Amino acid sequence: MESIITLRKSIDTRLVQLEVKAQPRNLYEPIGYLLALGGKRFRPLLVLLTAQLRGMQNPKALDPALAVEVFHNFTLMHDDIMDAAPLRRGQPSVHEKWNQNTAILSGDAMFVKAYQLITKIDPSYLLLAMNRFNETALEVCEGQQLDLDFEQIVDVSQADYLEMIRLKTAVLLGFSMELGGIMGGFGREDQERLYKVGENLGLGFQLMDDLLDVYGDQQKVGKQVGGDIIANKKTFLMINALDLAGTDVRSQLNGWISMRDVDSMEKVAGVKNIFNDLGIPQLVKIKMDAYFDEAFRLLKTIDCDKEGLDFFNNFAKSLIKREG
Amino acid sequence: MESIITLRKSIDTRLVQLEVKAQPRNLYEPIGYLLALGGKRFRPLLVLLTAQLRGMQNPKALDPALAVEVFHNFTLMHDDIMDAAPLRRGQPSVHEKWNQNTAILSGDAMFVKAYQLITKIDPSYLLLAMNRFNETALEVCEGQQLDLDFEQIVDVSQADYLEMIRLKTAVLLGFSMELGGIMGGFGREDQERLYKVGENLGLGFQLMDDLLDVYGDQQKVGKQVGGDIIANKKTFLMINALDLAGTDVRSQLNGWISMRDVDSMEKVAGVKNIFNDLGIPQLVKIKMDAYFDEAFRLLKTIDCDKEGLDFFNNFAKSLIKREG
Repeated sequence: MESIITLRKSIDTRLVQLEVKAQPRNLYEPIGYLLALGGKRFRPLLVLLTAQLRGMQNPKALDPALAVEVFHNFTLMHDDIMDAAPLRRGQPSVHEKWNQNTAILSGDAMFVKAYQLITKIDPSYLLLAMNRFNETALEVCEGQQLDLDFEQIVDVSQADYLEMIRLKTAVLLGFSMELGGIMGGFGREDQERLYKVGENLGLGFQLMDDLLDVYGDQQKVGKQVGGDIIANKKTFLMINALDLAGTDVRSQLNGWISMRDVDSMEKVAGVKNIFNDLGIPQLVKIKMDAYFDEAFRLLKTIDCDKEGLDFFNNFAKSLIKREG
Repeated sequence: MESIITLRKSIDTRLVQLEVKAQPRNLYEPIGYLLALGGKRFRPLLVLLTAQLRGMQNPKALDPALAVEVFHNFTLMHDDIMDAAPLRRGQPSVHEKWNQNTAILSGDAMFVKAYQLITKIDPSYLLLAMNRFNETALEVCEGQQLDLDFEQIVDVSQADYLEMIRLKTAVLLGFSMELGGIMGGFGREDQERLYKVGENLGLGFQLMDDLLDVYGDQQKVGKQVGGDIIANKKTFLMINALDLAGTDVRSQLNGWISMRDVDSMEKVAGVKNIFNDLGIPQLVKIKMDAYFDEAFRLLKTIDCDKEGLDFFNNFAKSLIKREG
């Protein structure tokens, strides 16, 4: 049984040791670069904390846990090309620092590295882990496709949006916990329940991200407040606001969305005022809390080791409370 | 034991039945499009013909054989972006018909489909098949990276070129035969020897492609004769010519390479004359035949079923003789 700090250290140590070859340099260097940019290592921690929910850590759990982190970073490398994002964690994205072809091909190689890591799982779990990893990876592609499609669609419904974030974000957290459950020796039914815990956490976290983008503390969130509003992103807040607004307010909102050359601060303040008047933050918070409550309710139905559960709950709750 | 025609039919039937979902359309449609463009299905045939070299066909061999075909087509989808190739098998490439983001993301999903297919192998072979597939996939990425790197390098040596085509092309043919060997019940040593057979065939085929590009019958080859010369590609012919040429002929060759706005026919004829004077086609043919001879020599050292071996040899030799 290991603490979050110990697990986090194992993850970081092993990530830099990944046997990524030196040559051809243009293929392998971007993989190390992206992984070294950091991140919370949230997904592998979720795998490992779930894997010890029965009270013991499977010594072979680390590499499969890293597979999820490497896969996630592969999707970031390709998504950044598709979104033309110049920065990743405050540093130049791979297609900016090298070029687009490099980001495509290094991403492909990184995807293979993820498969190499998951293949290190105990052989008795390999078939199940592969099947579930493949299904999850396809769903993540589907989520990114829906996200791209939504840029061209005026009317995105709440249900469509929730399905998009479920696929793009939540299924990988679900898989992280399922994989932990597989390696922790849980039965199939509990593994599926653990998946649901992760999926609900993922949906909650995504709504929390949408909220924090507008209502977070810039220092703590680490990015520009109102970035989603400035970029006209159809977040859960915006979709709800458009749903709830009467004719007048709706046309005010659409006015802000279609306005060009407007001062960003002014636009953020204007849209935020409308959100406030409509009670959007309260409404989104209720929805978010419902996902978190469901996650913890489900987790309680699974027979876990007391100490392992404490570690897990402390970790999950620290993430939920990070902006309080 | 099945004939090439029967195997080819099974491959084509199953490829169109691949459970590729309908939605999101922009993700999955390009996968079906690219697979439907056809091709010789050379790699899955190689898997299946090798798998029956012991006289029996493993009923579970088809899906893993298709994994190699789907993987190969995934690399084509991404390579076509990197090479800015507008056409694939005479039709618009995916990034042309849709757009670049679609070709990146559909390619990623196609890669997952390849993993889904290989996971259908008998579970007792899964770990070995995964490990070897992962290693091969990384090598194919390395080969493509070297190919991209070589565009920026003036002096590509013969050894560098052969290593590039080994990685980019030959290792996947090697893996096809190794996978067939695994599913056909061969011992590990024979599986590795089968890999070498495929690798040598692959190197020979690539040199044959280089030759046919200049000396092939346009009708039979199905593409413009001299395309590599027009595009200034550093093929095995060109590298050998630059190596063998004296100062004068070398500067003539470099003159053709650096010439702009030259008539293509004239350029092809000029370079071809130099190749002929230097005896390049004979030289490349000797090298090519050495690879083919080594492949068949190795194959003879493996204990095979007589009929299975006949099927295999007829297939391999029909490909070698296609322009003979």
